[in-house]
Amino acid sequence: MSITTVAFDGDDTLWHNEGLFTMTQERFEALLADHVSADVLHARMLDTERENVAVYGYGVKGFALSMIETAIEVTNGRVDAATIYRILSFAKDQLRHPVELLPGVGDVLTALGGRYQLLLITKGDLFDQESKIARSGLAERFDAIEVVAEKDPPVYARILARHDVDPAAFLMVGNSVRSDVLPVLEIGAQAAHVPYHLTWELEQADAPHEHDGYWELEHIGQVPELVAKLKGAA
Amino acid sequence: MSITTVAFDGDDTLWHNEGLFTMTQERFEALLADHVSADVLHARMLDTERENVAVYGYGVKGFALSMIETAIEVTNGRVDAATIYRILSFAKDQLRHPVELLPGVGDVLTALGGRYQLLLITKGDLFDQESKIARSGLAERFDAIEVVAEKDPPVYARILARHDVDPAAFLMVGNSVRSDVLPVLEIGAQAAHVPYHLTWELEQADAPHEHDGYWELEHIGQVPELVAKLKGAA
Repeated sequence: MSITTVAFDGDDTLWHNEGLFTMTQERFEALLADHVSADVLHARMLDTERENVAVYGYGVKGFALSMIETAIEVTNGRVDAATIYRILSFAKDQLRHPVELLPGVGDVLTALGGRYQLLLITKGDLFDQESKIARSGLAERFDAIEVVAEKDPPVYARILARHDVDPAAFLMVGNSVRSDVLPVLEIGAQAAHVPYHLTWELEQADAPHEHDGYWELEHIGQVPELVAKLKGAA
Repeated sequence: MSITTVAFDGDDTLWHNEGLFTMTQERFEALLADHVSADVLHARMLDTERENVAVYGYGVKGFALSMIETAIEVTNGRVDAATIYRILSFAKDQLRHPVELLPGVGDVLTALGGRYQLLLITKGDLFDQESKIARSGLAERFDAIEVVAEKDPPVYARILARHDVDPAAFLMVGNSVRSDVLPVLEIGAQAAHVPYHLTWELEQADAPHEHDGYWELEHIGQVPELVAKLKGAA
C-alpha cells in the first residue's frame, strides 16, 4: 500500500527546541556556579525531572519548577530569592523565544502539500505548543494538527482512526526514536527518523535498524524522496 | 432543529476544581502570613496571574510559578528557600489530589448516553486534564474528548466541524459564562450555565440573560429535562 498521509513531529523536527532547553540549562548552571559544579547540577536536575515528569508532564513550565526544586535541594536551602527569581525569568525567556524553523522545512511541506494528507503531531504543553505552532507560520500547511500529552501506540492509533488512515498508508517523520518511531512501528505504520543534534536524556532510545518500516534520514529534505520510493515499492 | 450533541465542560462542571485552587491559595496565604496579609497577597497574586496567563496559559503549573513570583515580589526578596519549597509541594499536592465528581454527574451521563452524542470539552493544561479525565473514570462515557488551550468561538467551531455537528443541534453545558456560554452562543449554538459556587476572578463574566440560546440551570441534574424540552420545541 502506498503512503497517503505523512505526519511530522514539531519540536526539533520542524523547529529548534532542545537547543532552547540547553540554553536555559546553561544559564541555570552559570547562575548556580558559586554553589555547585555544572556537572553535578546537570545530574541532579535530570534526577528531579525524571521524578517529576509523572506529575508535571513535558514542557517549559515543569522544567522551570524542576529547576527551582533542584536549586533549593542542591544548595541545601541556601539559594536566595533573587536567584530563584532569575530562574523564573529564564523560563519566561524560553517561552517567549522566537520559533526558528529547521532548514528545508518549508520546501518539504511545499513538495508534499496537496499530494498527501499532512498532519502535525506534537507532544507537550498544549498552550506552549499552540503558541509555537502559531508563531511558526506553518499551521496552514497542515490538514490537521494534534497536540498530545504522550506519544504511545494507543495515541497514534486514535489519531489514525480519527483521520481515517490505514496504518500501512501512514508515515511519521520525527527526531525522537522513542516518541516518533517505536510507537508508530508498533501499530504497523512506517517511521522516518531525522536526528537532531541534541536529544534530551529522557527521550533517548536505540534505533530499530532492522525493522522493515524504519527509515533513517540525514535531514528532512530527504522525506519527499522517501515517500516517492515507498510509492514505487507498493 | 433538535439537539443531537451535548458537550460538557470538565473543571467545576463534572468534577471539583476551583475549590482545589482555593485550598492551595489558602495554604499559600497561611505560609506567608508573617510577611503579608491574606487580602494583599490575594490581590498581588491575581495581578501576577493576569500578567502571566499570556505566557503560561491555564493550569496548576503556571499557578505555582505565579505563586513563587508573587512570594518573592511581595516580600521584596526576603522569602527563604524553604518557603518556596513548600509552595512547590502545594502544587504537587494539588496535581495529585483525587478527582471528586460533582453530585448527579453519573446519572446525567447515563440518562443521555446512547441517545445523544456526548462530548467532553475541557480547557487547560493537557497533561493535567488527561490525568484528571483518566482518574474521573468518565472517559468511556463520552464519544469524544477535546482538551483545548482556550475556549473561543473558532475553537468551538472547529470542534463542531470535526464531529459533523450543526451548531443548531449543539448544547454546551458548563459553569463558566466566559468559556462555556458566550463563545458557544456566538457560533449559533445553545448553552446551559450550571454555576459552581466558586469562580476564578479571571473567568468571571455577565450572563447573557436575554439571549434565546442561553439556559440557566441550578444543577447538572436538570440537563436531561432541558434537552427533552428543546426537543419538544423543535
